[in-house]
Amino acid sequence: MTDPRSRIAGAEVARFRDHALALADESRRQLRAFFVGSFEIKHKPDGSPVTSADIAVEERLREMIGRRFPDHGIVGEEHGAHKPAAEFQWILDPVDGTEDFVHRVPTFGTIIALHFRGAPVVGVIDVPMLDARVHAAFGLGAFRGAERLHLADLDPATPPAAIRITLSARTNFTHHRDDGALFEAVTREFPNHRIYRSCFAHLCAATGQADAAIDVGNPIWDFAAARILVEEAGGAFRVVQDYAVGADRFFSTIFGRPRVVERLAALFAGA
Amino acid sequence: MTDPRSRIAGAEVARFRDHALALADESRRQLRAFFVGSFEIKHKPDGSPVTSADIAVEERLREMIGRRFPDHGIVGEEHGAHKPAAEFQWILDPVDGTEDFVHRVPTFGTIIALHFRGAPVVGVIDVPMLDARVHAAFGLGAFRGAERLHLADLDPATPPAAIRITLSARTNFTHHRDDGALFEAVTREFPNHRIYRSCFAHLCAATGQADAAIDVGNPIWDFAAARILVEEAGGAFRVVQDYAVGADRFFSTIFGRPRVVERLAALFAGA
Repeated sequence: MTDPRSRIAGAEVARFRDHALALADESRRQLRAFFVGSFEIKHKPDGSPVTSADIAVEERLREMIGRRFPDHGIVGEEHGAHKPAAEFQWILDPVDGTEDFVHRVPTFGTIIALHFRGAPVVGVIDVPMLDARVHAAFGLGAFRGAERLHLADLDPATPPAAIRITLSARTNFTHHRDDGALFEAVTREFPNHRIYRSCFAHLCAATGQADAAIDVGNPIWDFAAARILVEEAGGAFRVVQDYAVGADRFFSTIFGRPRVVERLAALFAGA
Repeated sequence: MTDPRSRIAGAEVARFRDHALALADESRRQLRAFFVGSFEIKHKPDGSPVTSADIAVEERLREMIGRRFPDHGIVGEEHGAHKPAAEFQWILDPVDGTEDFVHRVPTFGTIIALHFRGAPVVGVIDVPMLDARVHAAFGLGAFRGAERLHLADLDPATPPAAIRITLSARTNFTHHRDDGALFEAVTREFPNHRIYRSCFAHLCAATGQADAAIDVGNPIWDFAAARILVEEAGGAFRVVQDYAVGADRFFSTIFGRPRVVERLAALFAGA
């Protein structure tokens, strides 16, 4: 079966990518101002925080998308689905790592993706306070600024302690179902791990700053940009869990250097 | 017994603090240049990386200390002990988080402390690429820039999932002795954790960006600044493990908001 994305002309993909970058510019500008200034904090029914920054940025990005691509759908963490039947869907997480944003820890970031029939066409992760951004577009490569990203694979003989992974906190392994044993298996097998609780971890996997990332029990907007970022950089992306809680769907994903992804995925396959 | 540090005049403490800040300025300047430029990487006998940046910065700081305070001792990660019998000892870790520095992850930092008869008089943590710095001096308070730091304690009824801790990776719990069960107890009990593998975690505990930090199985220079930073901010600092491996001594420490420190220390006491 032909990849449906190959039907989209390259110039069209580039136009979508440029719009995603303009959205990231706007998001960065606003989030930097909120971060050094002030914002209101509320708590969602699940206890997680949401701020006036999350809401303001998502509204602004929706407005920018709606004006430019009025036929496209939009899915966002804070405002629900717009035109859910459209072939093109923008997927937004204005502040991924809201808890860190609230506590002024600078690893939070914005995730922006455009999917076509469920497959990613464009992905951007922007971490405003670290001045870090990666972007990718289908067939056009993955980049950090002007630098093209290439994920070299790891020597198969690399010992686990020399493999640097990022992963979700234990709470992500247990908030919907009890996968605590998996958290323990992963941390035992790969003891050189980092936990950031935000898309900074995804950015590290796309650039090779980490060898792979494990993202557990999250809705689609949390990893909507990750797949195209690592695949365009020559890496691998695997969905290892996919389940529903009520009307909501959650996923666990592993992505980064191919051999590391396979070794990590094996731990999930055995669970 | 009177605290020996109270014998040092306040003006003298301020002079030491100002010198420590000048060292941090120099370290930051050099590390930023190395980070965006290039450096050589070697591996130490234990397999951990050391770079030409670690070595150049430590040499430069030793020279600055030796010129200003020729009678003071110096302990550093890369160059061993100078005047180990002196009452005043400068303790240096030019690049804490060398592995992240090597992989261009911006959470590494410099730790600078001055101890008098084993008790900390001055402490500075500088995280150059995040433009973040905290400093403290005995009796003079703890600061982030011009902002005085005050660690409010947590409501005792705060549920564990709402307590934000930073901790060492599992490898720190197992590289010298098998405390893997402790890693599991801590991550199970406090599932909202972050792992940075550098002094950025200590900085977060000193500012309240995290509620407490657990630093496991490290030599003295890794936490030499942490105690004065959190104590001057009104927080608590506890050594929960202290052991020797051959001629080297290692410690595990917990520091941050007092009630959180007590709850975390209880897990170590029960082990």
